[in-house]
Amino acid sequence: MERFIAETSFHVRYAETDAMRIVHHSNYIVWFEEGRSHYMRARGTSYADFERDGFFMAVTEVHVRYMKPVYYDERVTVRAWLEQARSRSMVFAYEILNSANEICVTGQTHHICMTQDGRVARIPPTWLAWMTSRENSAR
Amino acid sequence: MERFIAETSFHVRYAETDAMRIVHHSNYIVWFEEGRSHYMRARGTSYADFERDGFFMAVTEVHVRYMKPVYYDERVTVRAWLEQARSRSMVFAYEILNSANEICVTGQTHHICMTQDGRVARIPPTWLAWMTSRENSAR
Amino acid sequence: MERFIAETSFHVRYAETDAMRIVHHSNYIVWFEEGRSHYMRARGTSYADFERDGFFMAVTEVHVRYMKPVYYDERVTVRAWLEQARSRSMVFAYEILNSANEICVTGQTHHICMTQDGRVARIPPTWLAWMTSRENSAR
Amino acid sequence: MERFIAETSFHVRYAETDAMRIVHHSNYIVWFEEGRSHYMRARGTSYADFERDGFFMAVTEVHVRYMKPVYYDERVTVRAWLEQARSRSMVFAYEILNSANEICVTGQTHHICMTQDGRVARIPPTWLAWMTSRENSAR
Repeated sequence: MERFIAETSFHVRYAETDAMRIVHHSNYIVWFEEGRSHYMRARGTSYADFERDGFFMAVTEVHVRYMKPVYYDERVTVRAWLEQARSRSMVFAYEILNSANEICVTGQTHHICMTQDGRVARIPPTWLAWMTSRENSAR
Repeated sequence: MERFIAETSFHVRYAETDAMRIVHHSNYIVWFEEGRSHYMRARGTSYADFERDGFFMAVTEVHVRYMKPVYYDERVTVRAWLEQARSRSMVFAYEILNSANEICVTGQTHHICMTQDGRVARIPPTWLAWMTSRENSAR
Repeated sequence: MERFIAETSFHVRYAETDAMRIVHHSNYIVWFEEGRSHYMRARGTSYADFERDGFFMAVTEVHVRYMKPVYYDERVTVRAWLEQARSRSMVFAYEILNSANEICVTGQTHHICMTQDGRVARIPPTWLAWMTSRENSAR
Repeated sequence: MERFIAETSFHVRYAETDAMRIVHHSNYIVWFEEGRSHYMRARGTSYADFERDGFFMAVTEVHVRYMKPVYYDERVTVRAWLEQARSRSMVFAYEILNSANEICVTGQTHHICMTQDGRVARIPPTWLAWMTSRENSAR
């Protein structure tokens, strides 16, 4: 069984670098999130609509491994896929590639579905179906 | 007539630097905002309570002048004061000093009072009184 | 005389929003910078090469006007153009448009050319020619 | 054997919140780093001097667990300690507490010592001694 991998690319911003002249390590977490956003768009939906429906996917864990630095103005690619989907929680996994197509950073984020008043909730079945679907329906 | 100036100090974070090895110019806007937050705390109140009362102080303009760079781990000071207060709008002014007490960055931010459904509103009189008071009531 | 306007588009990241549920006002300064980076790429060059040549374009002033808020996941467009070019300094101007193509934020940034040991310098003539050229040579 | 724990406190900045009205999960990594910076200052030294000596402590792994959200204007405390020190690498651990003194976020960061031309290096013995010392010498 192969899984759906969403890929998005963009240039490294100057503001994302630090005094080591490389991308600051906290920015990869922001890029993971952008990878997740893109994953939703690639399914023909949007995380914005998930929130409009009254839910949040709260982050419960983040794990990152840094192998190679990334530099300003490189065109990086973020690959994001759903590693695990349960009724109330999800695990996303990521790879970040530099412009030479080398894997520089990998990671995982764990999420739990919550209502907007802060209670743990089941992921609505339509959403679960969209997110775990194997077809690409990029808008 | 002298005005009340709120002063807060903190160390420059590594994440706030960029590949020029200085503080990235966007971070001073974040520090201005922290200066404003501190201004409210120094009046014995909090911007968090202003929002709890159903209002926002939306930013309408930002102006910044950069004179000297600031470096990682320096202890900087942010001075913030109210330059102008009207029934619906406010102008704050700022100075940022490095650890040698030199003025490195100056600026102004303009704000308009809004209700949470997005309409321009009068600043509630109690708030206006707190913000324009000349006494320091730091909590 | 018409001028060259560089346009780049991307989705608003969740990390760029704040508790008002809109894009935090400091992020537009980062987007201006990304607009500048794109301007350089659209001329077939890169600001990274400018630094490799031993120069910096230090920011001396930033001015921003906020007209409308921008929201998570919108596809925004940043327009950047050179408003003024002198031997040692430059002024860039910007417009940020939301997904409905409305101008939400405008601004200007002022820059001065410096060597990497911190002295004001003339912008190298080849660079000045590239930056002020009216042809698009997007890579 | 008890270990030295460095503690630093500051107010949550508005820019650190996101549209969920809580602190965005990437900012805790920035706070971890600030905890590390403070750890160095509490030893009477500075990470800035470590870099001036020609070294970097590159981040190789980050692990974060999120238990409770943190809100704008809360006074948070970051506790940082050295969990493991080897000749070439270090592991720091962290706890972040909210204003009610509840542990909200925990994490670990792994580091490797590098020279500024990118080779793995031994941590200079004086630095290792400072960092593993059990006395507090806050400046």
